[in-house]
Amino acid sequence: MTNLLDGIEETLLMGPGPSCVAEPVYQALSRKTIGHLDPYFISIMDAVKGQLKTLLNTQNQLTIPISGTGSAGMETCFVNLIEPGDAVLILINGVFGMRMQDVATRLRADVDTVEFEWGQPVTLDAVKTALAKKTYKIVAIVHAETSTGVCNPIAEIGSLLNGSDTIYLVDTVTGLGGIPVEMDAWGIDAIYSGTQKCLSCPPGLAPISFSEKAVAALQSRQTKVPNWYLDLTMIANYWKGATRAYHHTAPINMIYGLYQALDLILAEGLEHVHQRHQDTHRLLVQGLGELGIDMLVAPECRLPMLNSVVIPDAANDAAIRSALLNKHKIEIGAGLGALAGKIWRIGLMGHTARPENVQRLLTALKTELAQG
Amino acid sequence: MTNLLDGIEETLLMGPGPSCVAEPVYQALSRKTIGHLDPYFISIMDAVKGQLKTLLNTQNQLTIPISGTGSAGMETCFVNLIEPGDAVLILINGVFGMRMQDVATRLRADVDTVEFEWGQPVTLDAVKTALAKKTYKIVAIVHAETSTGVCNPIAEIGSLLNGSDTIYLVDTVTGLGGIPVEMDAWGIDAIYSGTQKCLSCPPGLAPISFSEKAVAALQSRQTKVPNWYLDLTMIANYWKGATRAYHHTAPINMIYGLYQALDLILAEGLEHVHQRHQDTHRLLVQGLGELGIDMLVAPECRLPMLNSVVIPDAANDAAIRSALLNKHKIEIGAGLGALAGKIWRIGLMGHTARPENVQRLLTALKTELAQG
Repeated sequence: MTNLLDGIEETLLMGPGPSCVAEPVYQALSRKTIGHLDPYFISIMDAVKGQLKTLLNTQNQLTIPISGTGSAGMETCFVNLIEPGDAVLILINGVFGMRMQDVATRLRADVDTVEFEWGQPVTLDAVKTALAKKTYKIVAIVHAETSTGVCNPIAEIGSLLNGSDTIYLVDTVTGLGGIPVEMDAWGIDAIYSGTQKCLSCPPGLAPISFSEKAVAALQSRQTKVPNWYLDLTMIANYWKGATRAYHHTAPINMIYGLYQALDLILAEGLEHVHQRHQDTHRLLVQGLGELGIDMLVAPECRLPMLNSVVIPDAANDAAIRSALLNKHKIEIGAGLGALAGKIWRIGLMGHTARPENVQRLLTALKTELAQG
Repeated sequence: MTNLLDGIEETLLMGPGPSCVAEPVYQALSRKTIGHLDPYFISIMDAVKGQLKTLLNTQNQLTIPISGTGSAGMETCFVNLIEPGDAVLILINGVFGMRMQDVATRLRADVDTVEFEWGQPVTLDAVKTALAKKTYKIVAIVHAETSTGVCNPIAEIGSLLNGSDTIYLVDTVTGLGGIPVEMDAWGIDAIYSGTQKCLSCPPGLAPISFSEKAVAALQSRQTKVPNWYLDLTMIANYWKGATRAYHHTAPINMIYGLYQALDLILAEGLEHVHQRHQDTHRLLVQGLGELGIDMLVAPECRLPMLNSVVIPDAANDAAIRSALLNKHKIEIGAGLGALAGKIWRIGLMGHTARPENVQRLLTALKTELAQG
């Protein structure tokens, strides 16, 4: 019987994630498994907490990777903070804002939304208007909307909430490691991310962080968290203090991978990493312009790591993506939801964000567009 | 700065999981990451489904690994099947039965329990009595109780439920790959396992399977599954059919690891693997007897892969476990809950279940007991 793993071909991952993984991270994944209560593993857990605090620019004690992918991070933040009937405002300008609405609604929150055109950012005036009408326990927004390539004004909305009792909940699945995330300075109370975007670790973990305000809300719940697996009151006891209380078995080798991925980012320097994302983004936009391909999003709110480009009229969406994957071993992303068939999503995330990768994609795209 | 991963020392994992991982599985984890919607990755997903069906002895279409550890498998089965007020009977003889009760209660089920002494199996008479009093939507039980080392009579309880509308939900986190699991023949409707026990893959995935009856219950829900991340109605659309609907990004490299781990088991042959567990278990029991160490559980309901042994009066629980770990690089497990300080849990799971490992432990234990 053949082993399917032998047929895996290295692919340049330029979609909306997963991104390319650096060799030391692959090596980390294959380090020897040790016990989840082994003191040495606990020292690695402590180091990962410290690394994440540095990347998120936070002093929050409760800063840990959740044992699931980025969407588990979303679920964790909402399920720990929402009790039935809680007023939640969700600012929506793409698929992941909609997912927040779905998650919060299933948890029986009283959900209001303000919706914005996909490809446009959330605007402060609309948020001010909504906040003037009603008091919310939680305001939630996506930092880097992976479905459109828009960067939302997270710091500015944080200022609007400054001094209020409202919990500010931010999705930075695609942002973290690619653009600055100033959790404490921006007044964010609960945040989640994923490993497979700008952190360039394979999918499987979701870094989260809760401020003291969010932890106080969690501790003053009237009801138990309706999700045992993601109950932070128990998970926190495994990740903190001298006596580690067993909750579930942590994904040990994935945590090795995350440790290594974060170590690479910190060794390069966060500012350098962010600059590399901006530089390769500019190269890509320029090259696409030379091919006559437009960007969906206006320059002032474009994300560097997720580039939504308008599919040229003459081009066959699926055929070109297939040709890129099959002939050139380059993966780019399709449009989601309302943007399906209208845009491609080109990722420049983490280890993928290198000039030579941009050049390789542009060359391949030029070839395929000429044939298509 | 030193890299903490360089300090990881290979450990003989003889606790309640994780178990030792074979070299090809480590190599699989470090294969190149490809996209979660890449057709080649989907072929690997299909293969994993087939492998799991073989191990579980089931024809169930909905047989997949969930993107979380074993406890996420428990959460998945309960959250998809329970609606508020549903009558659920949980048969409890250890920590993991208690966890089921906690999970189901948080989901607002009407939970009844029948409790048995820890170290004793669930008895058919008690189950019959409970079933005679009330009709249950779900009856749930742990196959291989990891906290005590007891094997429960899963087939026999399945017979009691045969022909009823009750959904039979079984935890085989520790059983699968170590002892036979006959999902279809035993009338099991929903089952979950974990990768880090007898499958000998690092923790991070939870195989689950739903029968047609369980799928029908899921599809006829009056309310949405109150957990977006684990909603099988959506996850199933990603794992089946020609058009794969994106739900969340699968933990790609972990799935490579699971594929390889299952491939090794199937190449060795399930019956041979089960026999190896029995053989090493007998060696261990014999050797422990020679050291004057008793088993907690009676021979007729002992699990081969989780051996609960009574800590000798003269021995210091924590000191001996520490000495085994630090001096001999062998991990064994402590007792949980009511059995803390009273038993050690010695795992012979998957790749760990080899005569040479048993011998190494017995030698180390003899040395430490002589000194302690």
